[in-house]
Amino acid sequence: MSSRHVLSILVENKPGVLQRVTGLISRRGFNIDSLSVGPTEDPSMSRITVVVTADAVAFEQITKQLNKLISVYKITDLTRDGAIERELVLIKVSATPDRRSEIVEVANIFRANIVDVGRDMLTIEVTGDEGKVRGLEDLLRSYGIKEIIRTGKIAMSRNAKE
Amino acid sequence: MSSRHVLSILVENKPGVLQRVTGLISRRGFNIDSLSVGPTEDPSMSRITVVVTADAVAFEQITKQLNKLISVYKITDLTRDGAIERELVLIKVSATPDRRSEIVEVANIFRANIVDVGRDMLTIEVTGDEGKVRGLEDLLRSYGIKEIIRTGKIAMSRNAKE
Repeated sequence: MSSRHVLSILVENKPGVLQRVTGLISRRGFNIDSLSVGPTEDPSMSRITVVVTADAVAFEQITKQLNKLISVYKITDLTRDGAIERELVLIKVSATPDRRSEIVEVANIFRANIVDVGRDMLTIEVTGDEGKVRGLEDLLRSYGIKEIIRTGKIAMSRNAKE
Repeated sequence: MSSRHVLSILVENKPGVLQRVTGLISRRGFNIDSLSVGPTEDPSMSRITVVVTADAVAFEQITKQLNKLISVYKITDLTRDGAIERELVLIKVSATPDRRSEIVEVANIFRANIVDVGRDMLTIEVTGDEGKVRGLEDLLRSYGIKEIIRTGKIAMSRNAKE
């Protein structure tokens, strides 16, 4: 049975490492639901957070193969440990002047921020887990969503676990 | 002269596409400063936002090569058009009970959110452009940063430009 897995991978920050990691996953035919890579507290390392859907056997194979890559320092499976999951989403929505305040109200309920206002559009920034983002998206759909950009998820273990 | 470029790439959502894009960039020896990939408003497409440092000639070569990939639908260069740039960063910082309120105050100044509290740690969520994130990071460093995870940047053109 396939399920969703969140992996946090600490890698060497140099050209080609990201490609080796994504190559290893996609060669096995798994689609990457989302992926983020960015610098860490140590400039020589990057952290990749990747969400894949795979069954247990395939997932174990992926992590084993990843562990063999010399540029991979550490892999943490954040799927089951109740990690903090967050993504940032920018949503550009149609907003004629007469509907603007209504949309701002919807954004406020979700503690989302208006980051740009145009003649007949608003751009809204929201952060949160999947459910929250989807909830806002669903409500905004009726106004006409022009564009959505997502960062992909990042995840961090909870403080209580340490 | 090398400079920082932000590319927004609309691609087909299927296994291997991300790898072809990252492969094309890293084969040319360019390091990817940050990269995010996530679903869009259309489930058959994904959007990749990538930040690379390259000189003008090399950058033009990269975009030309990317345009040749059949899974690439559209490339937008958001480097110069004053796009909205945002990233989400989670920072886990040492916080003994006597310093906790001081750290919460710092977070408030940056409109950052406390997303988790442990016995001697706090996890802070901040969104914004590079300058804001770096500012908060610098202030928190003196308390002891345990972990930083970044989504990598996403960028969207401003409403006024449409």
